Amino acid sequence: MKTVKIIKIGGNIINNEKVLHNFLYNFSQLEGPKVLIHGGGKSASDLAKKMNTPVNMINGRRITDAQTLDIITMVYAGKINKKIIAKLQANNTNSMGFTGADGNTIKATKRSSSPIDYGFAGDIIKVNTQIPILLINNQVTPVFCAITHDKNGQLLNTNADTIAAEIAIALSTKYITELYYCFEEPGVLTDINNKNSVIENINSTKYTKLKDQGVIFKGMLPKLDNCFHALNNKVTKVSVGNSDMLFKENTTHTSIKI
Amino acid sequence: MKTVKIIKIGGNIINNEKVLHNFLYNFSQLEGPKVLIHGGGKSASDLAKKMNTPVNMINGRRITDAQTLDIITMVYAGKINKKIIAKLQANNTNSMGFTGADGNTIKATKRSSSPIDYGFAGDIIKVNTQIPILLINNQVTPVFCAITHDKNGQLLNTNADTIAAEIAIALSTKYITELYYCFEEPGVLTDINNKNSVIENINSTKYTKLKDQGVIFKGMLPKLDNCFHALNNKVTKVSVGNSDMLFKENTTHTSIKI
Repeated sequence: MKTVKIIKIGGNIINNEKVLHNFLYNFSQLEGPKVLIHGGGKSASDLAKKMNTPVNMINGRRITDAQTLDIITMVYAGKINKKIIAKLQANNTNSMGFTGADGNTIKATKRSSSPIDYGFAGDIIKVNTQIPILLINNQVTPVFCAITHDKNGQLLNTNADTIAAEIAIALSTKYITELYYCFEEPGVLTDINNKNSVIENINSTKYTKLKDQGVIFKGMLPKLDNCFHALNNKVTKVSVGNSDMLFKENTTHTSIKI
Repeated sequence: MKTVKIIKIGGNIINNEKVLHNFLYNFSQLEGPKVLIHGGGKSASDLAKKMNTPVNMINGRRITDAQTLDIITMVYAGKINKKIIAKLQANNTNSMGFTGADGNTIKATKRSSSPIDYGFAGDIIKVNTQIPILLINNQVTPVFCAITHDKNGQLLNTNADTIAAEIAIALSTKYITELYYCFEEPGVLTDINNKNSVIENINSTKYTKLKDQGVIFKGMLPKLDNCFHALNNKVTKVSVGNSDMLFKENTTHTSIKI
């Protein structure tokens, strides 16, 4: 079986033109098939501000009303996704942009409006890899943004980390899969103020302990839950760190094991 | 050879939610492979207004500065293209959204800045049908918006009529192609104030005569030039009219012949 790298990038790469440019250059040099997943960074909030649309958050999560969904669709699927595709083509990396509606790849259901109404937020039901596999086997790199659909005509805002995990899982029936979460830190830290405190290996026993001790908390919890979910569903390798882990040997990062 | 319908829709369909919904329903019922091309209608100007970005036009053509290109990319490739894809999926028409950067399908060159600087406006150099053909042969409908790229990382705003003609021409090496320009009129009119004045057949001799007489003028000229360009380059059939010509037999429209 071929190995496919599934790589998720966050705001620290997307928000900075030069960092994105360099990342995409290095990404293009990576050998073998790969899939890129990106969120929207702060561009969606920037556009909302320009359009005088209020940004509503509960517990750090965006409330996606109809106008916010339009903004997200414009920024994620339009501005950011197409900028990435154009830059990859300049690097001779043939690529295709996706939302979960394209190729009917990611079907989701609108999250229940109780207890909190997050609006047009989608929870993934099914990933359909027919078109991504067709493209991968024709040397084309799929590039997904964090939007899904309900197959009834409704687009839905969906967490990019979760999309990355579910795509990796779905591709694991056909390929050996490696999932990389690239973010602003060099890995999972024991001390969020100390970049030298990377935990290089985490397994489920250690994860439970670190959670109980309150060492890992907040935003790291859903990210690590996605990591273990992937590993428990046939993804071969899961790593968390900054993007150097993809391009430079021996870069400190966090390896997740079951 | 299979027959592929290449269908371009304009603002009269895109600007009206209900009309778009009905068009996409009927489009989904059309048998056989098809490709859809859309422009942006007035949404881009609406967003520019909301963002206080001036809309600059010369001779009815938009001047695409960097901010306008961002707006166009967000509206065409994001909002409109993804709305269309989600609706087609709801109709069980599997489809994929494209700019010309996706799959490296449409390479263009930035138009010379003299005598008029149109900004990031692109003139098509080459259509690469590898990915569209791969999708068509897997029962997936490509949906193109009016954006191309220069293969050096730059997206470019490109006329949707021209994109439709060039895609039809490029697909003519593999398929029998039929090109349909759907717009707000029932066809090419001899009197723009009289919808009953449709010219049902135009060949190149008649076209020259109608131009000389000033019967056909302004915006119809580039559209008809695209029609003849397509017919002169192996497109089998070219029609101009409202979208009823696709769905209802014996609908009055204009057939273009060489």
